[in-house]
Formats: sequence, C-alpha cells, structure tokens
Amino acid sequence: MESFTFHNPTKIMFGKNQTTHLGAQMHKDGIQKCILIAGKGSIRKNGAYDQVIDSLEKAGIKYTESWGVEANPRLPKTCEIIAHAKEYGAQAVLAVGGGSVIDTAKAVAAGLYLKDIWNAFIRKEMIKQALPIYTVLTVSGSGSEMNSEAMITNIDTCQKWSVSSPFIYPRLSIIDPSFQNTLPFKQTANGAMDAISHILEFYFANEKPITTLTINEALLRTITEMTDLLQKDPRDYNARANLAWGSTLALNGLSGVGMKGGDWSCHDIDHAFSALHPEISHGEGLAAILPAWIEYLSEREPSRFLRWAKCVWNEDNVSLAVRAFRSKLQSWGLATSLRDLSIKPDELDQILEMIMVTPTIGGIFKLSKDDVRSLLMLAY
Amino acid sequence: MESFTFHNPTKIMFGKNQTTHLGAQMHKDGIQKCILIAGKGSIRKNGAYDQVIDSLEKAGIKYTESWGVEANPRLPKTCEIIAHAKEYGAQAVLAVGGGSVIDTAKAVAAGLYLKDIWNAFIRKEMIKQALPIYTVLTVSGSGSEMNSEAMITNIDTCQKWSVSSPFIYPRLSIIDPSFQNTLPFKQTANGAMDAISHILEFYFANEKPITTLTINEALLRTITEMTDLLQKDPRDYNARANLAWGSTLALNGLSGVGMKGGDWSCHDIDHAFSALHPEISHGEGLAAILPAWIEYLSEREPSRFLRWAKCVWNEDNVSLAVRAFRSKLQSWGLATSLRDLSIKPDELDQILEMIMVTPTIGGIFKLSKDDVRSLLMLAY
Repeated sequence: MESFTFHNPTKIMFGKNQTTHLGAQMHKDGIQKCILIAGKGSIRKNGAYDQVIDSLEKAGIKYTESWGVEANPRLPKTCEIIAHAKEYGAQAVLAVGGGSVIDTAKAVAAGLYLKDIWNAFIRKEMIKQALPIYTVLTVSGSGSEMNSEAMITNIDTCQKWSVSSPFIYPRLSIIDPSFQNTLPFKQTANGAMDAISHILEFYFANEKPITTLTINEALLRTITEMTDLLQKDPRDYNARANLAWGSTLALNGLSGVGMKGGDWSCHDIDHAFSALHPEISHGEGLAAILPAWIEYLSEREPSRFLRWAKCVWNEDNVSLAVRAFRSKLQSWGLATSLRDLSIKPDELDQILEMIMVTPTIGGIFKLSKDDVRSLLMLAY
Repeated sequence: MESFTFHNPTKIMFGKNQTTHLGAQMHKDGIQKCILIAGKGSIRKNGAYDQVIDSLEKAGIKYTESWGVEANPRLPKTCEIIAHAKEYGAQAVLAVGGGSVIDTAKAVAAGLYLKDIWNAFIRKEMIKQALPIYTVLTVSGSGSEMNSEAMITNIDTCQKWSVSSPFIYPRLSIIDPSFQNTLPFKQTANGAMDAISHILEFYFANEKPITTLTINEALLRTITEMTDLLQKDPRDYNARANLAWGSTLALNGLSGVGMKGGDWSCHDIDHAFSALHPEISHGEGLAAILPAWIEYLSEREPSRFLRWAKCVWNEDNVSLAVRAFRSKLQSWGLATSLRDLSIKPDELDQILEMIMVTPTIGGIFKLSKDDVRSLLMLAY
C-alpha cells in the first residue's frame, strides 16, 4: 500500500432542516457579512434559499447575492463575483447549489487574494489564502462540498481546468437531502454517474489497498442501488440520503487512499467534450466514455478489471460487467456513446487535439494520441 | 437515515518512515517543547522511539519523557503525567504507542486545564481546552489516533470510563504500519477484535444507512482477511497497512454515520471485566462477550442480524454466522468465553453489579439486569 496523507477538515451537517443552523455556525466563526452565490434559481423552488435567508437573518448576518452560475461554470462569471465580493467586503462565501456553484464559490474565495484567479488554474500562482467557504448542497455528485478541488471553464482558451488547495476545503457544508426531491431524475442520474466516475478513476489504479477497494465497491453498489430506487420514487428520503452521503464520500479523499492519485483520463476526455459543448453535462459525458475506457483497457490488462466485474457486477467476465454497467446507465436515460451526446464525427479531431495537451494522458494507464483516437472511435 | 454531524480534523500521515516528518510538522505548528508519553518500552524495540527522537531533534523541538503507561491505563499515572507536563511547561503532548498511550495523552492534554481530570470522565467538568495532541501509532485497534475519545480506569472506584470532546482529536497522527511487524500475533488479533467490535457496536443499530452498512461490511471483511494474512506472515506489510487503516476507519466517525450513536453494551460489559481483572485485554474481553451478545439478541429480533450473517459471513442463518465468527476468533487464539478469560463463577454477581450502574444498558437493544445475567451465563 502506498503512503498517503489524509486530512479533511470540512464539517458536515447532514439531514432535514440542518440549514436552520447555518447562520448560528457562521456567527460563531465571527462572520458578519457574506456573499451568497447561486445558480439560476432552482434553490427558490427546492426550499433551500428561503431556509438559508431565514437562518442568516436570525443570526444577524448581512449578505449580498450573486446569481447566475451555470453548469460547467465559466471564468468571466467567477471574475464578476470576485469583484462583487470585494466591493461588498464579504468575510465569507456561501454557496447554495450544486457542484458548479460550490466550485465557483471556492474560486471566488481564493480569487480575492490573487492577481488573477485563472493563474491558479494554469499553475502560475499558488493559492495561499482564501475566505472561509460555507456550502448548502442542493445537487449531489461533484463531491465539491467536502473536498479541496474546484473546476472552472475558460471558454476563450477552450480549457476546463481544475485547481486543488487545502485553503478551499469548505469550513462547513450542509447536506439536506430533501432539497433534492424536486430534481428531474436525469439530474439525479447525472450526479450518480459523476460520483461513480470519481470512484472508478481511483479504483483501477492499485490492487493493494484492499481497504480502499472494498469501501469503493460498497460505494459503487450503494450509489447504483439508491439511484434505481430514486428512479421509482424521487421522494424516497432514505435513498436520497444514502446517495448524497455516498456521493460525498466518493471524492472526499477516502476513495483515493493508496491509489496513487488515480487515473483521470476519462475526466480529461469529458472536459474536452464540455469545453466544446458546454450543454453536455459532466455525468453524461462520463457515461459516454467510461464504459468504453474499461472495455479498451481490459483488452490490455484484463486481470486489473476482473475484481470490479466480480465485486460490483457479480460477473466473472469484464465484457459482461461492462455490458451490465452500460445497460444500467441507459436504463437511467443517460447517453452512453458520443453519438448519443450529439457529437459530430468531424469534431473528433478537434476533440482529440484538445485532449492531447500532453504526449500521453492518464495517471496510471498511459494513453497515447493513437490510444485516445481508438478509444473515441470505440465510444462513438 | 438519521441526521448527523461529521467533523474529523485529525491529519493522518500514513506509511513507512512518515515519522521523519513529525518534528517539522510540530515546528510548523509553533511547538517548541513537548512531553513524550510512552508505555513500557516496546517502542524502543520496534524502532518508533529512535525515529521520533531523531525527528524532534532535527527540528529543534525540546522534549521530556514520561514512560510506563499500561494497558487499560490508570488514573494515578495520568495525574502523574499531568504534573510532569505542567512542571516542564509542555506546549504539546506526543503519544508514542497504542490506544492506552494515546488515551492517556488525551487525558493529559485536557487535564492541564481542569481542576481534576477525573471530573471530565464522571461528567462533573466539561473539557473546554487542551494542548495540541500528536501521536505516533504502534498498535492498531483502538482507533484513538483519529477520534475524540479517551478511556481511563479508576481502580479505586472500579470505574473504566470514557470521555469525548472535540478538543482531544489528535492534530496529527502518524501511522507507520511497519512499527507493528514485531507485535506478538495475539496483540495483532486483540487489536483486530477491538476494531471489529467498534464496527459491530454501530452495525446493528439501524437498517437504513445503507452507505454506512456496506462500508462497515467492507471493513469487517477486510480486517478479518488481513488478520488471517498476518497470522501466516507478521511482516506482510500490505496486510499490516490495510489492517491499520481499516482499524482507524472503524472508529473515526465514518462507521457510525446514521447509527444513532450505536449500542455499546458489549463495551460496558467488557469494561467491568477489565476493571476487575486489569490483565484481561480489551480485545479478548470483547471476543468473549460479542458473539454471545449477537446470539442472545438474535433470538429476540432475528431479522436485525441476518444482513450481517449474509454480507459478512456469507451465511443464510445467524447461528451459523455466529459460529463462523467465534471459530475465527478461536483460530486467532483469542478467548471466546468468560471461562477462557479465567473469570470465576462466583465473580459473576460482582461483575453484574458493576455493569448495571443504570437500570438497563445498551443504546439500541436495552438489556435489563436479568438480560445481562442470562447473557453472562451464555458467554460463560
């Protein structure tokens, strides 16, 4: 087993009506004014916004609001919110929404202390400080509520890049699964696929950390099972809660213990999809590429994938497990090929160029440009 | 699923030679002098002591040493170390050892700020402050390296009591599994049983947190499998590492998520054993009572125990699973009855009185005095 450091200081308050504690928690931390960051308005429908405002007001915390963060959040919006936060004198950022909103809030929190926040993403400046970050999660999947990662897209340069820093762990994240009752099932499935992909990016990286492997198998099976239950009944609170907690654990450090940092090829590939087509959701881009990636690599090293076939899909054969995995994603209504994603055949070359910014991709299974070309064909 | 708060701020540095970073980490935290707390000398043999001293000296951190903490650590020793730490002006406590040493260090760290540390255990004073706690773990099992609990025995009053406070999370714990290469197998098995018992105290408490249940099943299977491997080869590093990490996760908050605080009857019962017979190890006391507890309760509510039988022991029947569990513990050389522990029949009444300080025990499955009497007979 590889050596590792594990340190996740985020406090999670999980369950119905936990948002009522938000204001008091911020007050205890000495916060007097914050900037509330949100998306396009779903939090007005799912009840999160009203609960947040009520809690802030009861605790006497002043706030300003910045709305309009989109899926695959963009750099200009981030810069706009940084300016807003600066002008207002915010002492904390408060994200109310899903992964895009939380990622934006993290970039804002750090961006206030940098010349140009994009410099942190392109590794030109190090994050050395950030405002405290509070989140109220309304869509599970990204895991951003309990990790030190943020991802922003720079449309001008066609780059969807991420940054990692210990300063951007949320101080407190509130996860009330009932806010997700009103999500369209497609979005629940997208989030589940995102969480599944986080686990799988680590899972095949190392056969020795049995503790991590068995935990990851538990998470993969539970996330799949809970998503099935939610397809039948979106208001099944227990399934929501288990899916939400499973998704948080899928990328809070636990699933990567001893896993050499994971592979992340499929994320690199998906980021090219969505940098070119921002309407492609992260979950769906991953659903289109991940089964094909397993298929492609299992021909090279079948033994590496057999444990997954057995322990997650109860199959003795990787091809049958890939088929079961893809069928499951299809049964959830997700696209499972590039064609399904409406990517045009003549875009493949451009996508390939966008992916191959380095001679190979993949932290564990190195893929050359020829490999990735073949993989894209296989996934088409 | 129950609401919960999860917040574990302990930093873990895990792997071979991680102790070399100890001094630098303490220096970064502004520590100039600390008190090193240790047991009876095993850390001189397993290499931990030399590495710790070397790292402290390289970082220029001054230290004093307090040796002699025993298994089932006692109150007078704790008070003695508090006085020593005070006199020396320690700015931090550094535990080098297993759970008893770490628990003592936690009590010392908090005790410096209390009139009488025992008051915290008997709930007469609240812990509101503590010195920063650093640990170098040399025996896995207690989970104390990554949690907020400490347990001390007061021989005068025959009380083995625990205290929990957010102020006693270690700031940093170093887990180098290779320090455990020289442990007698019996001690490895004791530690494994301790970890298994932590999971089982939570596991039966609630059927709804599927995410927690599946993770706990993964941990139970992995801890058992790794202990089997270590019985064959005590120097199997990968098995040591997986057992160590599994034992840490067994009581760092994760295994109890959504589990209503767990049951803890078996711990209450074992504490009476070891308050009366301090030579009975915690792991062995639990091995003698836990299978009988499952057997006893499964007659009352068989369905609650069936999932464990299936998912951990691959048995369709609780009795067969209990038999498999007990055989496994016997194969590790652990006592699995009160008779094996050399408890005398005429001590049972005294033990019963020591256990029943409240009308019932058990957070989930309430056991009356009559129940506990029957259980002790069943386990005899």
